Amino acid sequence: MDVKLLPNERIDELHRNGLKIIQNRKVFSFTMDSVLLSAFAGVTNNDRVADLGTGTGVLPLLIAGRKKVKEVVGLEIQDLLVDMAQRSVLLNKLDNIKIVKGDIKEAPRILGAETFDLVVSNPPYMKGQRGEVNTLTTKAIARHEILCNLEDVVLAGAKLVKYGGKVALVHKTERLVDIFYYMRKYNVEPKRLRLVQPKKDREANIVLIEGIKGAKPGLITLPSLIIYDETGQYTKEVEDLYNK
Amino acid sequence: MDVKLLPNERIDELHRNGLKIIQNRKVFSFTMDSVLLSAFAGVTNNDRVADLGTGTGVLPLLIAGRKKVKEVVGLEIQDLLVDMAQRSVLLNKLDNIKIVKGDIKEAPRILGAETFDLVVSNPPYMKGQRGEVNTLTTKAIARHEILCNLEDVVLAGAKLVKYGGKVALVHKTERLVDIFYYMRKYNVEPKRLRLVQPKKDREANIVLIEGIKGAKPGLITLPSLIIYDETGQYTKEVEDLYNK
Repeated sequence: MDVKLLPNERIDELHRNGLKIIQNRKVFSFTMDSVLLSAFAGVTNNDRVADLGTGTGVLPLLIAGRKKVKEVVGLEIQDLLVDMAQRSVLLNKLDNIKIVKGDIKEAPRILGAETFDLVVSNPPYMKGQRGEVNTLTTKAIARHEILCNLEDVVLAGAKLVKYGGKVALVHKTERLVDIFYYMRKYNVEPKRLRLVQPKKDREANIVLIEGIKGAKPGLITLPSLIIYDETGQYTKEVEDLYNK
Repeated sequence: MDVKLLPNERIDELHRNGLKIIQNRKVFSFTMDSVLLSAFAGVTNNDRVADLGTGTGVLPLLIAGRKKVKEVVGLEIQDLLVDMAQRSVLLNKLDNIKIVKGDIKEAPRILGAETFDLVVSNPPYMKGQRGEVNTLTTKAIARHEILCNLEDVVLAGAKLVKYGGKVALVHKTERLVDIFYYMRKYNVEPKRLRLVQPKKDREANIVLIEGIKGAKPGLITLPSLIIYDETGQYTKEVEDLYNK
Protein backbone atom coordinates (compact mmCIF):
# COMPACT_ATOMS: atom_id res chain seq x y z
CA MET A 1 0.00 0.00 0.00
CA ASP A 2 1.19 3.48 -0.79
CA VAL A 3 1.49 5.39 2.44
CA LYS A 4 2.71 8.96 2.50
CA LEU A 5 5.72 9.88 4.62
CA LEU A 6 6.07 13.39 6.02
CA PRO A 7 9.40 15.21 6.31
CA ASN A 8 11.80 13.52 8.79
CA GLU A 9 9.64 10.40 8.97
CA ARG A 10 11.02 6.99 8.18
CA ILE A 11 9.83 3.41 8.22
CA ASP A 12 11.40 1.21 10.92
CA GLU A 13 11.24 -2.57 11.32
CA LEU A 14 9.40 -3.94 14.36
CA HIS A 15 11.18 -7.31 14.06
CA ARG A 16 7.94 -9.17 14.51
CA ASN A 17 6.16 -10.89 11.63
CA GLY A 18 7.61 -8.36 9.20
CA LEU A 19 5.74 -5.48 10.81
CA LYS A 20 6.87 -1.91 10.20
CA ILE A 21 6.24 1.37 11.96
CA ILE A 22 6.46 5.00 10.85
CA GLN A 23 8.56 7.07 13.22
CA ASN A 24 10.07 10.51 13.36
CA ARG A 25 13.08 10.74 15.64
CA LYS A 26 12.59 14.46 16.03
CA VAL A 27 9.09 13.86 17.37
CA PHE A 28 8.89 10.54 19.17
CA SER A 29 10.31 7.03 18.88
CA PHE A 30 9.06 3.96 20.70
CA THR A 31 11.21 2.43 23.42
CA MET A 32 12.03 -1.06 24.58
CA ASP A 33 9.43 -0.66 27.32
CA SER A 34 6.65 -1.11 24.79
CA VAL A 35 8.30 -4.26 23.48
CA LEU A 36 8.56 -5.60 27.03
CA LEU A 37 4.92 -4.79 27.79
CA SER A 38 3.67 -6.41 24.58
CA ALA A 39 5.43 -9.64 25.60
CA PHE A 40 4.38 -9.45 29.25
CA ALA A 41 0.68 -8.65 28.88
CA GLY A 42 -1.60 -11.67 28.99
CA VAL A 43 -3.06 -11.37 25.48
CA THR A 44 -5.30 -14.18 24.27
CA ASN A 45 -6.62 -14.88 20.79
CA ASN A 46 -9.93 -13.11 20.14
CA ASP A 47 -9.29 -10.52 22.85
CA ARG A 48 -10.53 -7.01 22.45
CA VAL A 49 -7.65 -4.81 23.57
CA ALA A 50 -7.27 -1.09 24.26
CA ASP A 51 -3.98 0.82 24.43
CA LEU A 52 -4.17 4.07 26.39
CA GLY A 53 -1.86 6.74 24.98
CA THR A 54 -0.78 4.71 21.98
CA GLY A 55 1.69 7.24 20.55
CA THR A 56 2.82 5.97 17.15
CA GLY A 57 0.75 2.81 17.67
CA VAL A 58 3.61 0.52 18.55
CA LEU A 59 1.73 -1.50 21.18
CA PRO A 60 -1.28 -2.25 18.93
CA LEU A 61 1.12 -3.32 16.17
CA LEU A 62 3.17 -5.57 18.45
CA ILE A 63 0.08 -7.09 20.06
CA ALA A 64 -1.62 -7.72 16.73
CA GLY A 65 1.66 -9.25 15.57
CA ARG A 66 1.68 -11.63 18.50
CA LYS A 67 -1.84 -12.97 18.77
CA LYS A 68 -4.96 -13.16 16.61
CA VAL A 69 -6.77 -10.52 18.56
CA LYS A 70 -10.29 -9.50 17.62
CA GLU A 71 -9.41 -5.83 17.76
CA VAL A 72 -6.86 -3.46 19.25
CA VAL A 73 -7.95 0.11 19.76
CA GLY A 74 -5.20 2.66 20.32
CA LEU A 75 -6.31 5.88 22.00
CA GLU A 76 -4.12 8.95 21.48
CA ILE A 77 -4.74 12.61 22.22
CA GLN A 78 -2.14 14.22 19.92
CA ASP A 79 -3.23 14.69 16.29
CA LEU A 80 0.28 14.35 14.94
CA LEU A 81 0.70 10.92 16.56
CA VAL A 82 -2.82 9.77 15.67
CA ASP A 83 -1.99 10.48 12.03
CA MET A 84 1.35 8.65 12.17
CA ALA A 85 -0.20 5.66 13.90
CA GLN A 86 -3.04 5.46 11.40
CA ARG A 87 -0.60 5.47 8.50
CA SER A 88 1.43 2.67 10.17
CA VAL A 89 -1.74 0.60 10.42
CA LEU A 90 -2.39 1.17 6.71
CA LEU A 91 1.22 0.38 5.88
CA ASN A 92 0.91 -3.01 7.59
CA LYS A 93 -2.53 -3.68 6.07
CA LEU A 94 -3.96 -4.56 9.47
CA ASP A 95 -7.73 -4.24 9.68
CA ASN A 96 -8.02 -5.25 13.33
CA ILE A 97 -6.27 -2.13 14.63
CA LYS A 98 -8.15 1.10 15.10
CA ILE A 99 -6.53 4.38 16.14
CA VAL A 100 -8.89 6.78 17.89
CA LYS A 101 -8.24 10.36 18.86
CA GLY A 102 -9.20 11.18 22.43
CA ASP A 103 -8.37 11.89 26.04
CA ILE A 104 -7.58 8.98 28.40
CA LYS A 105 -9.80 10.60 31.03
CA GLU A 106 -12.72 10.31 28.54
CA ALA A 107 -11.80 6.77 27.47
CA PRO A 108 -14.81 4.93 28.95
CA ARG A 109 -17.22 7.28 27.14
CA ILE A 110 -15.25 7.21 23.86
CA LEU A 111 -14.39 3.48 23.75
CA GLY A 112 -17.18 1.95 25.85
CA ALA A 113 -17.03 0.91 29.51
CA GLU A 114 -16.50 -2.78 30.32
CA THR A 115 -16.07 -3.75 26.65
CA PHE A 116 -12.40 -4.84 26.69
CA ASP A 117 -10.62 -8.04 27.72
CA LEU A 118 -7.31 -6.28 28.18
CA VAL A 119 -6.13 -2.70 28.54
CA VAL A 120 -2.43 -1.94 28.12
CA SER A 121 -0.60 1.31 28.62
CA ASN A 122 2.91 2.68 28.58
CA PRO A 123 1.85 5.97 30.17
CA PRO A 124 3.87 9.15 30.69
CA TYR A 125 6.56 8.32 33.27
CA MET A 126 7.68 11.75 34.35
CA LYS A 127 5.95 14.10 36.74
CA GLY A 128 4.14 16.97 35.02
CA GLN A 129 5.92 20.03 33.74
CA ARG A 130 4.64 23.54 34.10
CA GLY A 131 3.79 25.53 31.02
CA GLU A 132 1.05 25.99 28.47
CA VAL A 133 0.23 22.77 26.64
CA ASN A 134 0.40 24.47 23.24
CA THR A 135 4.03 25.43 23.81
CA LEU A 136 5.05 21.89 24.74
CA THR A 137 6.54 19.39 22.34
CA THR A 138 4.79 16.21 21.25
CA LYS A 139 7.40 14.23 23.14
CA ALA A 140 6.93 16.20 26.35
CA ILE A 141 3.20 15.44 26.34
CA ALA A 142 3.84 11.76 25.65
CA ARG A 143 6.49 11.43 28.35
CA HIS A 144 5.27 13.70 31.16
CA GLU A 145 2.12 13.65 33.27
CA ILE A 146 0.74 16.79 31.69
CA LEU A 147 -2.61 15.80 30.19
CA CYS A 148 -3.11 12.74 32.38
CA ASN A 149 -1.52 11.17 35.42
CA LEU A 150 -1.04 7.61 36.63
CA GLU A 151 -4.29 7.54 38.56
CA ASP A 152 -6.21 8.64 35.44
CA VAL A 153 -4.67 5.77 33.48
CA VAL A 154 -5.44 3.12 36.10
CA LEU A 155 -8.99 4.43 36.54
CA ALA A 156 -9.60 4.44 32.77
CA GLY A 157 -8.24 0.90 32.51
CA ALA A 158 -10.42 -0.26 35.39
CA LYS A 159 -13.50 1.16 33.71
CA LEU A 160 -12.75 -0.13 30.21
CA VAL A 161 -12.21 -3.80 31.10
CA LYS A 162 -14.90 -6.35 31.71
CA TYR A 163 -15.09 -8.10 35.08
CA GLY A 164 -12.19 -10.58 35.00
CA GLY A 165 -10.41 -8.49 32.36
CA LYS A 166 -6.76 -7.45 32.63
CA VAL A 167 -4.95 -4.13 32.95
CA ALA A 168 -1.23 -4.33 32.12
CA LEU A 169 1.15 -1.41 32.60
CA VAL A 170 4.82 -0.64 32.25
CA HIS A 171 6.27 2.13 34.41
CA LYS A 172 9.25 3.23 36.45
CA THR A 173 9.89 1.18 39.59
CA GLU A 174 9.63 4.24 41.79
CA ARG A 175 5.88 4.33 41.02
CA LEU A 176 5.24 0.68 41.91
CA VAL A 177 3.56 1.50 45.21
CA ASP A 178 1.28 4.03 43.49
CA ILE A 179 0.32 1.52 40.81
CA PHE A 180 -0.59 -1.15 43.35
CA TYR A 181 -2.44 1.40 45.43
CA TYR A 182 -4.51 2.80 42.55
CA MET A 183 -5.22 -0.64 41.10
CA ARG A 184 -6.64 -1.83 44.39
CA LYS A 185 -8.52 1.43 44.84
CA TYR A 186 -10.29 0.82 41.50
CA ASN A 187 -10.82 -2.93 42.03
CA VAL A 188 -8.12 -4.17 39.67
CA GLU A 189 -6.11 -6.52 41.87
CA PRO A 190 -2.39 -6.74 40.95
CA LYS A 191 -1.73 -10.39 40.07
CA ARG A 192 1.60 -10.47 38.19
CA LEU A 193 4.74 -8.40 38.64
CA ARG A 194 7.98 -8.46 36.76
CA LEU A 195 10.91 -6.23 37.57
CA VAL A 196 13.29 -5.22 34.81
CA GLN A 197 16.95 -4.75 35.74
CA PRO A 198 19.52 -3.26 33.33
CA LYS A 199 22.03 -5.85 34.62
CA LYS A 200 21.81 -8.64 37.15
CA ASP A 201 23.58 -6.66 39.87
CA ARG A 202 21.81 -3.35 39.18
CA GLU A 203 18.64 -1.94 40.70
CA ALA A 204 15.49 -2.51 38.69
CA ASN A 205 14.34 0.62 36.88
CA ILE A 206 11.20 -0.62 35.12
CA VAL A 207 8.22 -2.62 36.34
CA LEU A 208 5.68 -4.66 34.39
CA ILE A 209 2.41 -5.15 36.24
CA GLU A 210 -0.81 -6.89 35.37
CA GLY A 211 -3.98 -6.68 37.44
CA ILE A 212 -7.31 -8.43 37.04
CA LYS A 213 -10.61 -6.65 37.65
CA GLY A 214 -12.43 -8.15 40.62
CA ALA A 215 -9.76 -10.78 41.38
CA LYS A 216 -8.80 -11.92 44.88
CA PRO A 217 -5.45 -10.73 46.31
CA GLY A 218 -2.36 -12.86 45.63
CA LEU A 219 0.61 -11.69 43.60
CA ILE A 220 2.95 -13.75 41.45
CA THR A 221 6.40 -12.24 41.06
CA LEU A 222 8.19 -13.46 37.97
CA PRO A 223 11.98 -13.76 37.78
CA SER A 224 13.52 -10.35 37.13
CA LEU A 225 14.13 -9.64 33.48
CA ILE A 226 17.77 -8.76 32.92
CA ILE A 227 18.43 -6.62 29.83
CA TYR A 228 22.21 -6.78 29.39
CA ASP A 229 24.68 -9.53 30.26
CA GLU A 230 28.17 -9.00 31.68
CA THR A 231 29.59 -8.19 28.23
CA GLY A 232 27.00 -5.47 27.57
CA GLN A 233 25.07 -7.58 25.03
CA TYR A 234 21.34 -8.22 25.22
CA THR A 235 20.54 -11.34 27.25
CA LYS A 236 19.04 -14.25 25.35
CA GLU A 237 15.56 -13.49 26.66
CA VAL A 238 15.70 -9.91 25.36
CA GLU A 239 17.15 -11.06 22.02
CA ASP A 240 14.22 -13.44 21.70
CA LEU A 241 11.72 -10.66 22.39
CA TYR A 242 12.96 -8.84 19.34
CA ASN A 243 13.07 -11.87 17.10
CA LYS A 244 9.89 -13.81 17.65
CA MET B 1 27.62 -17.98 81.61
CA ASP B 2 25.81 -21.11 82.69
CA VAL B 3 22.50 -21.28 80.85
CA LYS B 4 20.11 -24.16 81.38
CA LEU B 5 18.96 -26.19 78.38
CA LEU B 6 15.57 -27.91 78.43
CA PRO B 7 14.95 -31.35 76.88
CA ASN B 8 15.39 -31.36 73.06
CA GLU B 9 17.03 -27.95 73.10
CA ARG B 10 20.44 -27.38 71.64
CA ILE B 11 22.80 -24.49 71.04
CA ASP B 12 23.26 -23.52 67.37
CA GLU B 13 25.82 -21.17 65.83
CA LEU B 14 24.53 -17.96 64.24
CA HIS B 15 27.74 -17.54 62.21
CA ARG B 16 27.98 -13.89 63.12
CA ASN B 17 30.53 -12.62 65.65
CA GLY B 18 30.46 -15.97 67.43
CA LEU B 19 26.81 -15.58 68.43
CA LYS B 20 24.80 -18.62 69.47
CA ILE B 21 21.10 -19.35 69.75
CA ILE B 22 19.10 -21.88 71.72
CA GLN B 23 16.70 -23.79 69.49
CA ASN B 24 14.43 -26.79 69.73
CA ARG B 25 13.72 -28.38 66.38
CA LYS B 26 10.55 -29.93 67.74
CA VAL B 27 9.24 -26.49 68.64
CA PHE B 28 10.60 -23.90 66.27
CA SER B 29 13.82 -23.11 64.36
CA PHE B 30 14.69 -19.84 62.72
CA THR B 31 14.78 -19.67 58.92
CA MET B 32 16.94 -17.96 56.35
CA ASP B 33 14.28 -15.25 56.06
CA SER B 34 15.38 -13.78 59.39
CA VAL B 35 18.98 -13.74 58.21
CA LEU B 36 17.93 -11.96 55.02
CA LEU B 37 15.89 -9.39 56.93
CA SER B 38 18.70 -8.67 59.41
CA ALA B 39 20.99 -7.87 56.48
CA PHE B 40 18.37 -5.89 54.54
CA ALA B 41 16.99 -3.66 57.30
CA GLY B 42 18.57 -0.22 57.50
CA VAL B 43 20.07 -0.53 61.00
CA THR B 44 22.30 2.29 62.20
CA ASN B 45 24.55 2.45 65.23
CA ASN B 46 22.71 3.76 68.31
CA ASP B 47 19.30 2.80 66.90
CA ARG B 48 16.54 1.65 69.20
CA VAL B 49 15.02 -1.34 67.45
CA ALA B 50 11.90 -3.45 68.07
CA ASP B 51 11.25 -6.92 66.67
CA LEU B 52 7.59 -7.89 66.54
CA GLY B 53 7.05 -11.61 67.12
CA THR B 54 10.67 -12.36 67.92
CA GLY B 55 10.30 -16.14 68.39
CA THR B 56 13.60 -17.47 69.69
CA GLY B 57 15.09 -13.98 69.42
CA VAL B 58 17.07 -14.57 66.26
CA LEU B 59 16.51 -11.11 64.78
CA PRO B 60 17.59 -9.20 67.91
CA LEU B 61 20.71 -11.39 68.09
CA LEU B 62 21.59 -10.91 64.42
CA ILE B 63 20.94 -7.16 64.56
CA ALA B 64 22.96 -6.70 67.76
CA GLY B 65 25.70 -8.74 66.08
CA ARG B 66 25.73 -6.40 63.10
CA LYS B 67 25.62 -2.90 64.53
CA LYS B 68 26.22 -1.21 67.87
CA VAL B 69 22.56 -0.60 68.48
CA LYS B 70 21.41 1.15 71.63
CA GLU B 71 18.78 -1.49 72.32
CA VAL B 72 16.81 -4.20 70.57
CA VAL B 73 13.50 -5.17 72.14
CA GLY B 74 12.00 -8.47 71.01
CA LEU B 75 8.26 -8.81 71.61
CA GLU B 76 6.87 -12.33 71.78
CA ILE B 77 3.50 -13.65 72.92
CA GLN B 78 4.39 -17.29 73.61
CA ASP B 79 5.91 -18.01 77.04
CA LEU B 80 7.94 -20.95 75.79
CA LEU B 81 9.66 -18.79 73.15
CA VAL B 82 10.10 -15.81 75.47
CA ASP B 83 11.96 -18.10 77.85
CA MET B 84 14.17 -19.59 75.11
CA ALA B 85 14.96 -16.14 73.70
CA GLN B 86 15.84 -14.76 77.14
CA ARG B 87 18.24 -17.63 77.76
CA SER B 88 19.88 -17.04 74.36
CA VAL B 89 20.44 -13.41 75.33
CA LEU B 90 22.06 -14.54 78.60
CA LEU B 91 24.14 -17.12 76.75
CA ASN B 92 25.58 -14.40 74.51
CA LYS B 93 26.06 -11.96 77.41
CA LEU B 94 24.29 -9.20 75.50
CA ASP B 95 22.89 -6.48 77.70
CA ASN B 96 21.39 -4.41 74.87
CA ILE B 97 18.73 -7.01 74.02
CA LYS B 98 15.51 -7.20 75.97
CA ILE B 99 12.86 -9.87 75.41
CA VAL B 100 9.35 -8.79 76.44
CA LYS B 101 6.25 -10.93 76.61
CA GLY B 102 3.23 -9.41 74.92
CA ASP B 103 0.77 -9.16 72.07
CA ILE B 104 1.76 -7.32 68.87
CA LYS B 105 -1.64 -5.60 68.88
CA GLU B 106 -0.71 -4.11 72.29
CA ALA B 107 2.84 -3.23 71.26
CA PRO B 108 2.52 0.58 71.33
CA ARG B 109 1.16 0.46 74.89
CA ILE B 110 3.73 -2.13 76.06
CA LEU B 111 6.83 -0.75 74.32
CA GLY B 112 5.96 2.94 73.91
CA ALA B 113 4.60 4.68 70.81
CA GLU B 114 7.05 6.60 68.60
CA THR B 115 10.09 5.53 70.62
CA PHE B 116 11.89 3.37 68.02
CA ASP B 117 14.15 4.15 65.07
CA LEU B 118 13.46 0.82 63.41
CA VAL B 119 10.86 -1.92 63.72
CA VAL B 120 11.55 -5.28 62.10
CA SER B 121 9.30 -8.29 61.80
CA ASN B 122 9.24 -11.72 60.24
CA PRO B 123 5.53 -12.15 60.90
CA PRO B 124 3.36 -15.25 60.46
CA TYR B 125 3.18 -15.94 56.71
CA MET B 126 0.25 -18.30 56.50
CA LYS B 127 -3.41 -17.46 56.66
CA GLY B 128 -5.03 -18.26 60.02
CA GLN B 129 -6.08 -21.76 60.98
CA ARG B 130 -9.28 -22.60 62.76
CA GLY B 131 -9.16 -24.12 66.22
CA GLU B 132 -8.71 -23.14 69.83
CA VAL B 133 -5.41 -21.43 70.45
CA ASN B 134 -4.60 -23.69 73.41
CA THR B 135 -4.71 -26.77 71.18
CA LEU B 136 -2.31 -25.28 68.62
CA THR B 137 1.40 -25.88 68.57
CA THR B 138 3.96 -23.17 69.25
CA LYS B 139 5.03 -23.40 65.61
CA ALA B 140 1.50 -23.00 64.28
CA ILE B 141 1.07 -19.77 66.24
CA ALA B 142 4.44 -18.47 65.06
CA ARG B 143 3.77 -19.34 61.40
CA HIS B 144 0.05 -18.67 60.92
CA GLU B 145 -2.03 -15.52 61.26
CA ILE B 146 -3.82 -16.77 64.36
CA LEU B 147 -3.09 -14.21 67.06
CA CYS B 148 -2.24 -11.36 64.69
CA ASN B 149 -2.44 -10.65 60.97
CA LEU B 150 -0.36 -8.61 58.56
CA GLU B 151 -2.35 -5.43 59.07
CA ASP B 152 -1.84 -5.69 62.87
CA VAL B 153 1.92 -5.96 62.33
CA VAL B 154 2.14 -2.98 59.96
CA LEU B 155 -0.07 -0.88 62.22
CA ALA B 156 2.01 -1.74 65.31
CA GLY B 157 5.22 -0.92 63.42
CA ALA B 158 3.76 2.38 62.24
CA LYS B 159 2.85 3.36 65.79
CA LEU B 160 6.13 2.26 67.38
CA VAL B 161 8.51 4.19 65.11
CA LYS B 162 9.33 7.84 65.36
CA TYR B 163 8.59 10.14 62.44
CA GLY B 164 11.29 9.27 59.89
CA GLY B 165 11.77 5.84 61.46
CA LYS B 166 11.83 2.62 59.46
CA VAL B 167 9.62 -0.46 59.34
CA ALA B 168 11.28 -3.47 57.66
CA LEU B 169 9.43 -6.71 56.94
CA VAL B 170 10.06 -10.04 55.28
CA HIS B 171 7.07 -11.89 53.84
CA LYS B 172 5.82 -14.03 50.98
CA THR B 173 5.68 -12.29 47.61
CA GLU B 174 1.98 -12.99 47.28
CA ARG B 175 1.35 -10.48 50.10
CA LEU B 176 3.40 -7.66 48.54
CA VAL B 177 0.36 -5.67 47.46
CA ASP B 178 -1.14 -5.96 50.95
CA ILE B 179 2.08 -4.81 52.56
CA PHE B 180 2.34 -1.74 50.32
CA TYR B 181 -1.33 -1.02 50.84
CA TYR B 182 -1.23 -1.24 54.65
CA MET B 183 2.04 0.68 54.88
CA ARG B 184 0.60 3.57 52.93
CA LYS B 185 -2.65 3.35 54.92
CA TYR B 186 -0.67 3.86 58.13
CA ASN B 187 1.69 6.51 56.73
CA VAL B 188 4.78 4.32 56.39
CA GLU B 189 5.79 4.86 52.77
CA PRO B 190 7.50 1.85 51.14
CA LYS B 191 10.96 3.05 50.08
CA ARG B 192 13.05 -0.08 49.42
CA LEU B 193 12.06 -3.43 47.95
CA ARG B 194 14.12 -6.52 47.35
CA LEU B 195 12.72 -9.68 45.81
CA VAL B 196 14.28 -13.01 46.74
CA GLN B 197 14.36 -15.70 44.05
CA PRO B 198 15.38 -19.32 44.79
CA LYS B 199 17.23 -19.33 41.44
CA LYS B 200 17.77 -16.73 38.75
CA ASP B 201 15.11 -18.20 36.44
CA ARG B 202 12.57 -18.93 39.17
CA GLU B 203 9.73 -16.77 40.48
CA ALA B 204 10.51 -14.78 43.60
CA ASN B 205 8.91 -16.28 46.71
CA ILE B 206 10.06 -13.86 49.40
CA VAL B 207 10.02 -10.06 49.59
CA LEU B 208 12.04 -7.72 51.78
CA ILE B 209 10.41 -4.32 52.24
CA GLU B 210 11.36 -1.22 54.16
CA GLY B 211 9.11 1.78 54.64
CA ILE B 212 9.77 5.13 56.29
CA LYS B 213 7.18 6.85 58.44
CA GLY B 214 6.04 10.10 56.85
CA ALA B 215 8.30 9.80 53.78
CA LYS B 216 7.33 10.94 50.30
CA PRO B 217 6.48 8.26 47.68
CA GLY B 218 9.33 6.86 45.57
CA LEU B 219 10.46 3.25 45.69
CA ILE B 220 13.94 1.85 45.09
CA THR B 221 13.96 -1.72 43.85
CA LEU B 222 17.22 -3.50 44.58
CA PRO B 223 18.59 -6.26 42.35
CA SER B 224 16.80 -9.52 43.10
CA LEU B 225 18.63 -11.66 45.62
CA ILE B 226 19.28 -15.10 44.16
CA ILE B 227 19.68 -17.87 46.75
CA TYR B 228 21.10 -20.80 44.75
CA ASP B 229 23.33 -20.83 41.69
CA GLU B 230 23.03 -23.25 38.76
CA THR B 231 24.86 -25.98 40.68
CA GLY B 232 22.50 -25.76 43.66
CA GLN B 233 25.08 -24.05 45.90
CA TYR B 234 24.45 -20.81 47.76
CA THR B 235 25.36 -17.78 45.67
CA LYS B 236 28.28 -15.71 46.88
CA GLU B 237 25.98 -13.04 48.29
CA VAL B 238 24.11 -15.57 50.43
CA GLU B 239 27.36 -17.21 51.54
CA ASP B 240 28.56 -13.79 52.65
CA LEU B 241 25.38 -13.17 54.65
CA TYR B 242 26.19 -16.19 56.78
CA ASN B 243 29.83 -15.36 57.22
CA LYS B 244 30.08 -11.71 58.01
